[in-house]
Amino acid sequence: MISEKVKQSFIRIVGSENYDDSKAGRLVYSYDATPQFQSLPDAVIAPRNTKEVSEIVKICNEHRIPLVPRGSGTNLCAGTCPIEGGVVLVFKHMNKILEIDEENLTVTVQPGVITQDLIKAVEEKGLFYPPDPSSMKISTIGGNINENSGGLRGLKYGVTRDYVMALEVVLANGDIIRTGGKLAKDVAGYDLTRLFVGSEGTLGVITEATLKLIPMPETKKTMLALYQDLEAAARSVSKIIANKIIPTTLEFLDQPTLAVVEDYARIGLPTNVKAVLLIEQDGPYEVVERDMKKMAEICQEEQAVSVQIARSEAEADALRTARRSALSALARLKPTTILEDATVPRSEIAKMVKAINEIAEKYNVKICTFGHAGDGNLHPTCPTDVRDREEIERVEKAFEEIFAKAIELGGTITGEHGVGAMKAPYLEWKLGKEGIEAMKAIKQALDPNGIMNPGKIFAKSERKRVVVTR
Amino acid sequence: MISEKVKQSFIRIVGSENYDDSKAGRLVYSYDATPQFQSLPDAVIAPRNTKEVSEIVKICNEHRIPLVPRGSGTNLCAGTCPIEGGVVLVFKHMNKILEIDEENLTVTVQPGVITQDLIKAVEEKGLFYPPDPSSMKISTIGGNINENSGGLRGLKYGVTRDYVMALEVVLANGDIIRTGGKLAKDVAGYDLTRLFVGSEGTLGVITEATLKLIPMPETKKTMLALYQDLEAAARSVSKIIANKIIPTTLEFLDQPTLAVVEDYARIGLPTNVKAVLLIEQDGPYEVVERDMKKMAEICQEEQAVSVQIARSEAEADALRTARRSALSALARLKPTTILEDATVPRSEIAKMVKAINEIAEKYNVKICTFGHAGDGNLHPTCPTDVRDREEIERVEKAFEEIFAKAIELGGTITGEHGVGAMKAPYLEWKLGKEGIEAMKAIKQALDPNGIMNPGKIFAKSERKRVVVTR
Repeated sequence: MISEKVKQSFIRIVGSENYDDSKAGRLVYSYDATPQFQSLPDAVIAPRNTKEVSEIVKICNEHRIPLVPRGSGTNLCAGTCPIEGGVVLVFKHMNKILEIDEENLTVTVQPGVITQDLIKAVEEKGLFYPPDPSSMKISTIGGNINENSGGLRGLKYGVTRDYVMALEVVLANGDIIRTGGKLAKDVAGYDLTRLFVGSEGTLGVITEATLKLIPMPETKKTMLALYQDLEAAARSVSKIIANKIIPTTLEFLDQPTLAVVEDYARIGLPTNVKAVLLIEQDGPYEVVERDMKKMAEICQEEQAVSVQIARSEAEADALRTARRSALSALARLKPTTILEDATVPRSEIAKMVKAINEIAEKYNVKICTFGHAGDGNLHPTCPTDVRDREEIERVEKAFEEIFAKAIELGGTITGEHGVGAMKAPYLEWKLGKEGIEAMKAIKQALDPNGIMNPGKIFAKSERKRVVVTR
Repeated sequence: MISEKVKQSFIRIVGSENYDDSKAGRLVYSYDATPQFQSLPDAVIAPRNTKEVSEIVKICNEHRIPLVPRGSGTNLCAGTCPIEGGVVLVFKHMNKILEIDEENLTVTVQPGVITQDLIKAVEEKGLFYPPDPSSMKISTIGGNINENSGGLRGLKYGVTRDYVMALEVVLANGDIIRTGGKLAKDVAGYDLTRLFVGSEGTLGVITEATLKLIPMPETKKTMLALYQDLEAAARSVSKIIANKIIPTTLEFLDQPTLAVVEDYARIGLPTNVKAVLLIEQDGPYEVVERDMKKMAEICQEEQAVSVQIARSEAEADALRTARRSALSALARLKPTTILEDATVPRSEIAKMVKAINEIAEKYNVKICTFGHAGDGNLHPTCPTDVRDREEIERVEKAFEEIFAKAIELGGTITGEHGVGAMKAPYLEWKLGKEGIEAMKAIKQALDPNGIMNPGKIFAKSERKRVVVTR
């Protein structure tokens, strides 16, 4: 609860037009893209600059008011659901690209910049920001940094973490710190930059970031390989890497996903095969040509029934866009879509896909699987309905088993979506009790009053998912 | 001090042959490669496995005995000087390459593996571990991880941090945790892996690491560009990057360094020019050819007096080896060699080189400068003599001014050597009071009794370097 006095303090900082505690305003920010989680915040505040953020944080810290920084809320781990109420911070005013530095190959941004706008802005200078989460049309950079977002180009280019060079962060006590710099090398103390990346707003509020850019690849080619055998597709993935080729993108879609995506995108995707690999390579012309040829050979050796290279950039773009739309397409099937991101070492992809199918059968639930095969990062996705409690229970058991299998294969419960409130109950499976304790100690050290996005990463009690309502 | 009873506990764990508290044994581990720092440990212990490390740490924690994990002691920040005594942990028994995983492109090692041995072992499989600190012939991987070592290939390939995927770490309470995995993507909780990388043994003892490998580049070419004008050399660096070429290596040596290196290596380096750039590119044949041609043109446009491409791999290797020997060569000049690594955004290289020369003149000290120009990571180096207190005072003032200038230009006090005991007094210049407080809070959270490599990173009192003796 926010008292009238505290409310007036907030309004003095940001102006009444940037403080919203109306029922309608709170409702909008009571959920994010994650199904089954909803909880009303007490207020939604839109600061205009870092100083205002610092002042807001100080008040929250003094009065033990939970604080949830939020971008576009596209995360899939209930990372921005205000499950303990409090203040949701939105960055609609802090959405500027502050600088593109062509000499140092960096871009400096405020957290509210839309990912795709950033990518387009640097492309105009011949520069490239590789992280491309599927949500990039609406996600913000601040959200990407807090979740350490991945994407389709992760295999070759890494994830958001690999591109964050410097941060401005407001700590729980209101201190404003700057980490890193426009520096290729910097070992002055602990790597706070990367500690904040992926910390899901639980350690501080990111108010500015300097990101690394690289030269735009000269050219790019896209290929589709079709399979009647899931494991043959998985073997192709392993064999490509074992042949020392690292493609930009190596995506996998199973038959149920293909059918749904084609129905949505209508670009002529085959729907009568068991699996598809979408493969891209970029770089210098000669290298791309050579790699595509070699990869096509490998796919054929591994019994691909067809290997087609996109004839035009338009065709390639249609394929990429179709793949990016997988979640939206799947979401049309049923009222609720649960999309997970169990991740395994890439050598274990075939085993994982097989296990997912067996688990789906065991619990009699529909699971469509697609994802970043080259990263071992799969997205088993279940179209379901939260109102059907009996089915939801089976779905949850199935996913629990999927997480356990991923861990068993040397993997993790989340490759790129984050832990949030949703996967907190499973984190101990990956980290062990001691690992969780170490992380909690860091959280406690930087946020002793626990105001920063409480209820995320660390589970309160047992291992069940719950629908949270207040 | 270690009591007889505690000594016997240590011996019960590791055996008497792995516990050394002889004067001679302690003397060997009383210093590292950093001048002006020496302090005797109370004992030197060589554990044989992680369990033994954990048991040793528990005893140290119980009895508040400082613990200094040490590789080959090649660091240049007094990072492994046991300035508060206690136990030095050496890893001569924990020096195995445990696995090279060709499917997942990883290598798993114990901390005592020599960097170059690792590089050679993976090269035999056609794989590449890029971080190549100049000390790699004798440095250990454990040391590299603790210091987040850089090297000559950092411009294109990044530093040690960019290759550490998973760690096994013994925490101050004796807990053994595992971070990360053979996973291209993993966002299960805070990024402890990268928090430990570069933490200089102050947060835990690293007992195992899984490192990322990449395919071996097809080919490599090496070029020397000679200049009669320092700033022209610096401008060439900026212009190469601005032309969207990221070479593997872009090293700078000034005339005094050149003269010394040639005198040491005798490979026919020119000694009558003001500066040299050593440029390397690797990758597919066509790309390397094209990039080398373009870079040669850029150097010529920027008034290089000569641009020569190495005619053979032997010649190229001689050039690289000569560059790597810069510290050894400079160390022959005077009894003491102080080598720093002030780092700036690469756009500021010309300003920084100019400032270093002006500062050297102001304090009447000899400073030779070489380093990783492409990274903005310079190594101003002063041949001096610790016994000449008057000169040492001028040297320290000069370096203080160099650090201040680096910060002023948006840089850092250390690009790849670490903070250790040596640069602790300057850390606040880079991080500010609030930044230091945040790091201290993390240190306190993970090591409440302060046993892990005490006296490093965080300064005890004022800003002066001191010769430490016990």
